[in-house]
Amino acid sequence: MSNSHTVENIAIVGLGLIGGSLARALRKNGFARRFIGYGHRKPSLERGVELGVIDCNTLVLDEIIAQADVIVIATPTLVASEMLKEILPRMIGQSHTPIITDVASVKGSLLDTAKAVFGSMPPRLVLGHPIAGSERSGVDASDENLFENHRVILTPVEGNEPDAVELIRVMWESTGAEVIDMQVAEHDAVLAATSHLPHVLAYALVDALAQSDASEDIFRFAAGGFRDFTRIASSDPVMWRDISIANKKALLQSIDMFSDRLEILRKKVEDDDSDGLLEIFSRAKEARDEFAAILAARSK
Amino acid sequence: MSNSHTVENIAIVGLGLIGGSLARALRKNGFARRFIGYGHRKPSLERGVELGVIDCNTLVLDEIIAQADVIVIATPTLVASEMLKEILPRMIGQSHTPIITDVASVKGSLLDTAKAVFGSMPPRLVLGHPIAGSERSGVDASDENLFENHRVILTPVEGNEPDAVELIRVMWESTGAEVIDMQVAEHDAVLAATSHLPHVLAYALVDALAQSDASEDIFRFAAGGFRDFTRIASSDPVMWRDISIANKKALLQSIDMFSDRLEILRKKVEDDDSDGLLEIFSRAKEARDEFAAILAARSK
Repeated sequence: MSNSHTVENIAIVGLGLIGGSLARALRKNGFARRFIGYGHRKPSLERGVELGVIDCNTLVLDEIIAQADVIVIATPTLVASEMLKEILPRMIGQSHTPIITDVASVKGSLLDTAKAVFGSMPPRLVLGHPIAGSERSGVDASDENLFENHRVILTPVEGNEPDAVELIRVMWESTGAEVIDMQVAEHDAVLAATSHLPHVLAYALVDALAQSDASEDIFRFAAGGFRDFTRIASSDPVMWRDISIANKKALLQSIDMFSDRLEILRKKVEDDDSDGLLEIFSRAKEARDEFAAILAARSK
Repeated sequence: MSNSHTVENIAIVGLGLIGGSLARALRKNGFARRFIGYGHRKPSLERGVELGVIDCNTLVLDEIIAQADVIVIATPTLVASEMLKEILPRMIGQSHTPIITDVASVKGSLLDTAKAVFGSMPPRLVLGHPIAGSERSGVDASDENLFENHRVILTPVEGNEPDAVELIRVMWESTGAEVIDMQVAEHDAVLAATSHLPHVLAYALVDALAQSDASEDIFRFAAGGFRDFTRIASSDPVMWRDISIANKKALLQSIDMFSDRLEILRKKVEDDDSDGLLEIFSRAKEARDEFAAILAARSK
């Protein structure tokens, strides 16, 4: 590893799978010299030091603000919002402040919070979202290669300091990720459609079946297709409650778009509209097959 | 293998993944001495002979009716219905006829067809449904172990000859499957909930996204959760059109049950009902985790 680091000190707020994996990746490629863990739970921070993911840890927010060149808020969506409320007021009127970024699944609600507590757009706050995850969680599951060949979306806005945006871009690129810029609203709409809506649908289906009279038989005879379809209903309920609330507007739009389509399909079943059903199923299969080909090409 | 077979001649109607795999399994365990393939497509029958899945083939229905002890209709649902219309009238008034069974995903519609063309319940028609499959299809993908540790549902009815039901039970058990009896209506309701509804939901979601303005971005940023959730939308559109139409009543009930639940969830998102969302998501996660444990125990 090189002795010249891009930054000296980086602070990770919330040392879970994403924060831990980012720290590991940035240590491996020499992006930062020293990694400071911050959080409310001492045991996971101490575990982070034990694993070599971070060099030191603190429960005192002002310490990381004073020391860090970059602060990565690697908490779930609503906690990230709370963190911004704590951090940003301390930045008002300061000449040199850390660059702050995050990894949350929803960007619009964070932007609103940031502007509200700062009074305007904080120039050195760069919102971002790595599209990566795992069914595992916690710092013990962290992996220095988690972001390799994955996409990271940045949503720079007017009022952002260009150098700050550039540094966060370089940081993510150094992990092997492909960095893409998007508008905040576009990010939230795309994520609602591809991630937040499917989670809500999977939760709704499993809950509906579990509450039905025949639930025992239902789960007894369900097979592999059902397992794949409902896998995401095993995701963390707190995280998904927070995302649903934070991305309310785009999620409601996605649910309505889906419900309209389902109603059309339902009507075709009711009307024995054989040709109509075949048309929709064929079109969907074609789109799904194309998507599978994209994913396969990406993982090469 | 033993030289004493349970039956002499077995005919497979429709030599695809399921028919081919059943023939392979029954040859391996010595259930039948000779395997006759019947269908409309000569090439797949000849391929079956080439692969050793069947011993001979014919395009003439009367030949298998004259020769077979058991006829397995291993075609998709609507074709199975057409086959019953061709086969059953030839059985009326005959003293010794083959035992007939099937593998279709919907049982009620086949039962109605059978009674209509036969005039009453054909005593030697035993409806069945192996809960097994694969993303692959065709006789080349057939596998003698496909049914091992899988469930096969039989739906015997009043008017069935007990010996015929017993023979079909023995046949499936010999493949390593667990055979379970169910009422026809119960079968169709359980399959609608666990299989037919999820397929319709996956098709509806992928089609809705593919038709949206942002479809390019949507598929570009979709990740692993979306891939799993939509995998079943890559299934054969003709097969699923047929199942949707054949199991119309139970499928509509399942869609309505799901839509009601989704509407409840939607309302909670709209109302920022944080506790209500967490309750549903947590309950669903618990049910999904239990289901995963059942599946894991089964595959041991």
